[in-house]
Amino acid sequence: MAEHIVSSYDIELQNLRKSISEMGGKAEQMLDFATLALINADTILANKVIAMDKQLDLLQKDIDEQAIVMIARRQPIAVDLRTAISAIRISNDIERIGDLAKNIAKRSIVIAGQFEEKTIVSGIEHMSNLAQHQLKTVLDAYGQLDARAASEVWLKDDEVDALHNSIFRELLTYMMEDPRNISFCAHLLFCAKNIERIGDHCTNIAETIYYLVTSETMPTERPKSETVNL
Amino acid sequence: MAEHIVSSYDIELQNLRKSISEMGGKAEQMLDFATLALINADTILANKVIAMDKQLDLLQKDIDEQAIVMIARRQPIAVDLRTAISAIRISNDIERIGDLAKNIAKRSIVIAGQFEEKTIVSGIEHMSNLAQHQLKTVLDAYGQLDARAASEVWLKDDEVDALHNSIFRELLTYMMEDPRNISFCAHLLFCAKNIERIGDHCTNIAETIYYLVTSETMPTERPKSETVNL
Repeated sequence: MAEHIVSSYDIELQNLRKSISEMGGKAEQMLDFATLALINADTILANKVIAMDKQLDLLQKDIDEQAIVMIARRQPIAVDLRTAISAIRISNDIERIGDLAKNIAKRSIVIAGQFEEKTIVSGIEHMSNLAQHQLKTVLDAYGQLDARAASEVWLKDDEVDALHNSIFRELLTYMMEDPRNISFCAHLLFCAKNIERIGDHCTNIAETIYYLVTSETMPTERPKSETVNL
Repeated sequence: MAEHIVSSYDIELQNLRKSISEMGGKAEQMLDFATLALINADTILANKVIAMDKQLDLLQKDIDEQAIVMIARRQPIAVDLRTAISAIRISNDIERIGDLAKNIAKRSIVIAGQFEEKTIVSGIEHMSNLAQHQLKTVLDAYGQLDARAASEVWLKDDEVDALHNSIFRELLTYMMEDPRNISFCAHLLFCAKNIERIGDHCTNIAETIYYLVTSETMPTERPKSETVNL
C-alpha cells in the first residue's frame, strides 16, 4: 500500500513537470506566431495567438491548482516541495510570456499594412529569434534539471537587452524621419519592449530552475546596468 | 505545549501578513516618488526610488522564504495554506509594481529637463494618482481580508486602462507636432504603460485576496476588451 502511495505521488510530480513543459511549448509557439504575424501583417495568425493565450491561462490555473493540492495533501519536503513551488513560479512566468506574445499579436493587427519595408521590423525579428532561443534553452534546462544551462540563459539575457536598446534608437530615427511613421513605430517600440521582457522572464525561470536543482538562490547579481537598461 | 506551538504558528502567519503590508507600503511610496520625480525632473528622488527597489526585492525574497518554510514545517491546510500561497503571489505582484515604479524613475532621469510644459505629464500624473488609489485600496482590502473591496479594485481597473489609451494618443500628437518631442515622449509612452501595468498588478492582487478569503477564483471575466486595450 505504501508503495502504491509513493508511486502515485511520483506520477503527480511527473504530471506537474509535464504540464509545465506543455505550457512552455505553447508559449514558444505563441512567440513564434506573433513575430510572424507582425512581420507578414498576418491578422489570422495574430488572432490565433490571441486565442492560444486563453488556453495558456487555463493551463496555468491548472498547474497552480495541481501544485497547491499537492502541497496540501502530500506535504512534500526538500526537492518535492521545491518542485511544487517552482511549478507555481515557472507557470506564472510562462503565462506572462504568453501575455507578452499576445500583446505583440494585438499590436500587429493594429498596425497591419501601415509599413511596407520589412527592414523596419528586421531588428525585432532578430531579437525575437534570440528570445525564442533563450526560451527553448531554459525550457530544455527545466526538462533536464540542468542548473548550468539555466545559468547560461541567465547570463545571455544581456544580449537581448543590448539588442533592445539598439532597436529602440533605430525606431526613434524612423519616427523623426517621417511623422507618418510615428504611430506604427510607437507600437513597434512596445513590441520590442515585450520581447525584452520575455527575455527577463526566461532569466526568472532560469533562477527558479537553479533554486529547484540546487536549493540555493543564484550566487551573483546579473551584470545588468541600472541606468542603461530601461 | 500544544498551545505554545499553535500560538507561535499564529505569530508566523501574522508576520507574513505584516511583511506583505510593509512591502505594499513601500511600493506605494515608490510609485508616489517616481511620479513626483518625473513631474519635477527630480533626479535625487528618482535615485531614491531606484535604491528602494533593492529593499523591496529583499523583502520579497524574505516573504517567499517565510512562506515556503511555513508550508514545509507547518504543513498548513485550508485558509492557512491559502495565506502562505497568497503571500507568495502578492509579494510577486508588489515586487513587479516596484520594478515598474523604478522603471519610471530611471526614465525620469533620462528625460529630465527635456520638456518644460508640465501639461505634457499632467495626464500621467492623473493616471498615477488613480493607480496609487487602486494600490492603496487593494492593500487595505488585504489588511481587512475584504473580498468585496478587492472586487471593486478589480472592476475599477478599466478606468486606468481608458486613461492609458487616451494618454497614448495624446503623446503621439505631441510627437507629430515637433520631432524634438519624439525622444522624451517615447519614454513617457512607457511611463504611462508602466502605470497601466501597475493597475493590472493591483487586479492580480485583488484576485488573490478573493481566493484567500473565499477559497474560490473570481466568478467573472473582467470586462476588458481584447482589441482596444494594448
